[in-house]
Amino acid sequence: MENFTYCTPTKLIFGKNAIEQLPEVMRPLGRKILLTYGGGSIKKIGLYDEVKRLLSDFEIYELPGIEPNPKYSPSVLDGVRLCKDNGIEAVLAVGGGSVLDCSKAICAGALYDGEPWDLISYQVKAQKALPLVDILTLAATGSEYDCGGVISRTETNDKIGYMDELLFPVASILDPRYTFSVSRKQTAAGTADAINHIMEQYFCEKHSVLTDGMCEAAIKSLIQNARVALEEPDNYEARSELMVDCSLACNGILSIGNSPSGWPCHGMEHALSGYYDITHGEGLAILTPRWMRHILNEKTIERFVSFGVHIFGIDASLPEAEIADQTIEKTYELFASFGIPMHLREVGIDDTRLSEMAHHIAVNEGLEHAWAPLQEQDILEILQASL
Amino acid sequence: MENFTYCTPTKLIFGKNAIEQLPEVMRPLGRKILLTYGGGSIKKIGLYDEVKRLLSDFEIYELPGIEPNPKYSPSVLDGVRLCKDNGIEAVLAVGGGSVLDCSKAICAGALYDGEPWDLISYQVKAQKALPLVDILTLAATGSEYDCGGVISRTETNDKIGYMDELLFPVASILDPRYTFSVSRKQTAAGTADAINHIMEQYFCEKHSVLTDGMCEAAIKSLIQNARVALEEPDNYEARSELMVDCSLACNGILSIGNSPSGWPCHGMEHALSGYYDITHGEGLAILTPRWMRHILNEKTIERFVSFGVHIFGIDASLPEAEIADQTIEKTYELFASFGIPMHLREVGIDDTRLSEMAHHIAVNEGLEHAWAPLQEQDILEILQASL
Repeated sequence: MENFTYCTPTKLIFGKNAIEQLPEVMRPLGRKILLTYGGGSIKKIGLYDEVKRLLSDFEIYELPGIEPNPKYSPSVLDGVRLCKDNGIEAVLAVGGGSVLDCSKAICAGALYDGEPWDLISYQVKAQKALPLVDILTLAATGSEYDCGGVISRTETNDKIGYMDELLFPVASILDPRYTFSVSRKQTAAGTADAINHIMEQYFCEKHSVLTDGMCEAAIKSLIQNARVALEEPDNYEARSELMVDCSLACNGILSIGNSPSGWPCHGMEHALSGYYDITHGEGLAILTPRWMRHILNEKTIERFVSFGVHIFGIDASLPEAEIADQTIEKTYELFASFGIPMHLREVGIDDTRLSEMAHHIAVNEGLEHAWAPLQEQDILEILQASL
Repeated sequence: MENFTYCTPTKLIFGKNAIEQLPEVMRPLGRKILLTYGGGSIKKIGLYDEVKRLLSDFEIYELPGIEPNPKYSPSVLDGVRLCKDNGIEAVLAVGGGSVLDCSKAICAGALYDGEPWDLISYQVKAQKALPLVDILTLAATGSEYDCGGVISRTETNDKIGYMDELLFPVASILDPRYTFSVSRKQTAAGTADAINHIMEQYFCEKHSVLTDGMCEAAIKSLIQNARVALEEPDNYEARSELMVDCSLACNGILSIGNSPSGWPCHGMEHALSGYYDITHGEGLAILTPRWMRHILNEKTIERFVSFGVHIFGIDASLPEAEIADQTIEKTYELFASFGIPMHLREVGIDDTRLSEMAHHIAVNEGLEHAWAPLQEQDILEILQASL
């Protein structure tokens, strides 16, 4: 195992009626709350009213309309201004990964005197941040159980993963019933996102019996439970496992002590959705099998074999190359079976900006240091194969 | 999944030379430190001198000699008095589970005006506790990553599992090299302890694809790596995995969302070591296969089958009863293969007090509410079968 420091201090409050604990969770944090949310689905499912009722003796300000792939401007900047103007003491994010990510940047920016982008772009280290609590409505990114967020800046096509230990949520309220109304498309994309999170930790140089098994367990759970949830969106057990799988998929516990992978698919996908604003999980699902094909070689094949045998039940007695081929094939088929469009052109990306994106990725994502290093030409070839 | 609240705020600092972070970990906690340790093995391996060197600008008081199955008197009481007399600000526990467990009770007792036993016996809830940091020298109980401890009170044969959220260590320093000198006996017993921790979470009513897979991963890792470490005590990778396996085995992450099992083997073992002061992990290893045999029935058999197929690779196409039988047999053989004495009489327990212990367990451990309920007669039969 590699040396590591691991700490996730967030309290997960999971289950039916978990929200009833909201007042006691918020009370010690302050009375002036910024409530952040997205396009309004929380109003449709009654969650907005429930929050307002439970927090009736708090002073609540609102930042609605946080967009998918949340934007620095207007969302982060508006939220920071609301906090500063009104002496906000805590942020309550109600939504999916985008709302949470944006809220984390707001929490940091609210207690920083300069331009919030200084923090997000790592030019300045935050010294403090407002406390964040969230109520999750979409199982996908794992933002509810990590200290990171991804923020896009449209004018520069930048999409930056911003992490700071100050930004772990104090508590995350997880009631699987809030995800019953999540669409097929978003259920599929969220699952693909989480599967990719785990694959990015699994495909690495140093791993262990423990981490291989934990990663495989979570991926198998995601696959089985997504299949159920896609057919029966209000299946409580399936939505429960998906929710917990996603929470654990991105905070490092499943790969504790593994060597770093470099998160190559995420690095590439950030450019796709930075340039084209596509759904993150769909971008990842499209890239993953092409990335696998591109990096398959003698040094990496052991991971393909292990993954294929344990996740897809491929016959371990076959020749390694055959197992690896089948593993890539079955990964593609898995995402396709969720109904995810598996070509970039199906999500509105053609070949006009592939070179520009490959260059942007090569310059910004450090993928030449990934476990299976990617130079600009490699990245371009993966993008082309994904068309 | 069942409703749950999960939070483990402890920072794990793992790896070679992790101890170098000790001063910066301790600094914010205070300058007056109580250093707690056991029989002196930390002096033999140079760890005591290293701690003193790193903390040369702290004011250090010492509580040496904490015994296995740590005792309320003298250890907890001596520690509490040292803290109160000297205005101790933080406790640094260096050792295995016994030293950590005892130190947790000291942390709580130090800031309580009454008799510490009030807290341990749950008559009074602690309002605050001294911060605890530990340096682990034995992979076994998982005390470094949970908020519980087990304290024995000799005059009443009581052995109480005491838990309080205030007692999570602030940080646990895990350098696998400190466990190179752990004896065969203790390596085996520590592994058996952790395997049993996980089995007690696995054998329950409600479980998931995720938790089954995570539990199986950790048990497989424990088995494989214990076999290596028993032959090569200074194998860094094996000692690393054992250490992390044990840390995760007892804090609930592997069984997140499972229904409770009631911890029946631990409930019974606490009486064995409460009455006879035997090694906890050995007591568990002896009891576990007899407990399995006793609770096997139509309602429980699914767990035996799943465990046997996934842990021991038993042919899943065999009749369920046959798989369950083999599972019990192989569990016994596993512990025996570690060199653990597998009969109570081999660890100095004869039949003279079995009835008394069975009664004590039945009255104190609540095992009639366990997943597979145990009445006094059941407990007695399990103890008799373990002779």
